[in-house]
Amino acid sequence: MTGDRRAVGRLLSLVERGGAEAEQIAELTHAASRDAHVIGITGAPGAGKSTMVARLVAESTSRGNSPAVLAVDPSSPLTGGAILGDRVRMAEIDTTAFIRSVATRGHAGGLALAVPGGARVLAASGFDPVVIETVGVGQVEVDITAAADTTVVVVTPGMGDAVQANKAGLLEVADVFVVNKADRPGADDTRRDLELMLELSHVTGQGNADFRPSIVMVNSLDGTGVDEVAARIEAHRAYLEHSGRLHARRCRRVRFELASRAGLRFERDLETILGSPTMAAVIDDVAAGTATPAAGLDALAASLAERP
Amino acid sequence: MTGDRRAVGRLLSLVERGGAEAEQIAELTHAASRDAHVIGITGAPGAGKSTMVARLVAESTSRGNSPAVLAVDPSSPLTGGAILGDRVRMAEIDTTAFIRSVATRGHAGGLALAVPGGARVLAASGFDPVVIETVGVGQVEVDITAAADTTVVVVTPGMGDAVQANKAGLLEVADVFVVNKADRPGADDTRRDLELMLELSHVTGQGNADFRPSIVMVNSLDGTGVDEVAARIEAHRAYLEHSGRLHARRCRRVRFELASRAGLRFERDLETILGSPTMAAVIDDVAAGTATPAAGLDALAASLAERP
Repeated sequence: MTGDRRAVGRLLSLVERGGAEAEQIAELTHAASRDAHVIGITGAPGAGKSTMVARLVAESTSRGNSPAVLAVDPSSPLTGGAILGDRVRMAEIDTTAFIRSVATRGHAGGLALAVPGGARVLAASGFDPVVIETVGVGQVEVDITAAADTTVVVVTPGMGDAVQANKAGLLEVADVFVVNKADRPGADDTRRDLELMLELSHVTGQGNADFRPSIVMVNSLDGTGVDEVAARIEAHRAYLEHSGRLHARRCRRVRFELASRAGLRFERDLETILGSPTMAAVIDDVAAGTATPAAGLDALAASLAERP
Repeated sequence: MTGDRRAVGRLLSLVERGGAEAEQIAELTHAASRDAHVIGITGAPGAGKSTMVARLVAESTSRGNSPAVLAVDPSSPLTGGAILGDRVRMAEIDTTAFIRSVATRGHAGGLALAVPGGARVLAASGFDPVVIETVGVGQVEVDITAAADTTVVVVTPGMGDAVQANKAGLLEVADVFVVNKADRPGADDTRRDLELMLELSHVTGQGNADFRPSIVMVNSLDGTGVDEVAARIEAHRAYLEHSGRLHARRCRRVRFELASRAGLRFERDLETILGSPTMAAVIDDVAAGTATPAAGLDALAASLAERP
């Protein structure tokens, strides 16, 4: 079925559009999507994620897999974004992977719906692994990547880059670290910073107790180290299956998806209610000082409870 | 009552702590808080907001007002944060204003409760104007500032700073622009960028139809232009009162506060329910493929509807 890419593309468009059809597709693809390995790849803008992803899926293809990519990165050269002079042209990398840009339409909540749904379609269509590439800036993007089976965090040499990754909450979610552009000065320092922080999180119990993230030095431009990244990802997949932790990961993903969808529904209800004549009158009274904020909140809660 | 600052401080602590006491204080202070002018001041980190605010409240005091400041900026020198070498020491600026740092405890939702509540306490205590200073980074910080009567956006000379402010949504919410560090190269370019963008938003109808934001060149270090900022803020206050738009602003603030509080309550309920044994079993089934995501969402929605 992976051959019928136009059909897959149409399904993905329907999922991104949301609504009843997206819902039906989710129902139909859910059970069949469970075998595929979902890999999340994130990192700061300019970390060279997209080139790394292109190399990685080429490597995966050469190992006999059928990878697909969902790219949630507006600047990704994979999806027609800006191509900087120093980036490898995608055409130079021999990949037959299915690559799809997720249209975000400027709404973070929409992403949290479109990405799990899209990954499900790709997995049910026979693609394996399914790679989700996000730029690690917003919390939603980090959360989406963290909801994968295996999470890869890409950093580059530079003062405090590892520290930034830590601040963004990426240290806790990474199963594999890639130090990209490892030919640049400072790459060894970055590796050492990461090792130190992993050691600390191990000691303090913040890290995963029985799996220690690996750190791989990579040069995406010439492909150095990409085979090692693929090997580490497969080792993590094997660990998840043997340890029985795959199910726990999948539960975490379901929890995240349900919370996102309930949150989106709440936000829509809230907006509708706040725009209603009843609430406008209540807000008017509170602003005029004739009703208290608590009375306003009670009225809002009552309207929310009445929603179907 | 502005003299009894320890009592005001205690009330603010109770408001920040939240819960039933914060609720009671909101009820008691709400009606009495309506006269004070609430000024929101925001800008990127390093824009020199805090020095500007210190100058501004000194100016306000010299005009016979009793200003108070709620600072939601972890790096503010007003509140004991990092003091850079090139910043004016606060002690050099003669101000008797009441200055309070809002403890965020790392939770954005808490801010959306503590700031309106704190502003209400200060206003009911006789302080006027009440200045809310936030670092314009996150959406919550921008929203809090935008919920003021008058919103001041501070930018500095530098390539694309005005463009950044526009991207962050600050252009739409500003009633007064301050180009701080106006002695630096590029200050006139920044002014021109802002003028152009205001012109465009005016043409496209995005801006305020009957009030055009002013742009003031300021050097907070020696105080140049701060009197002009104070004058522009008072002009905006007069405009709000004469045009009848003050009530519309206050309604917007109430709407924002109610939405924030309802959202926080929803998030707490969601977390509780997702951690319950019932939902854990549902999530387990969805992850195992024996239940569909839609069934999981239905179960979650049902549990949410049952919450008091």
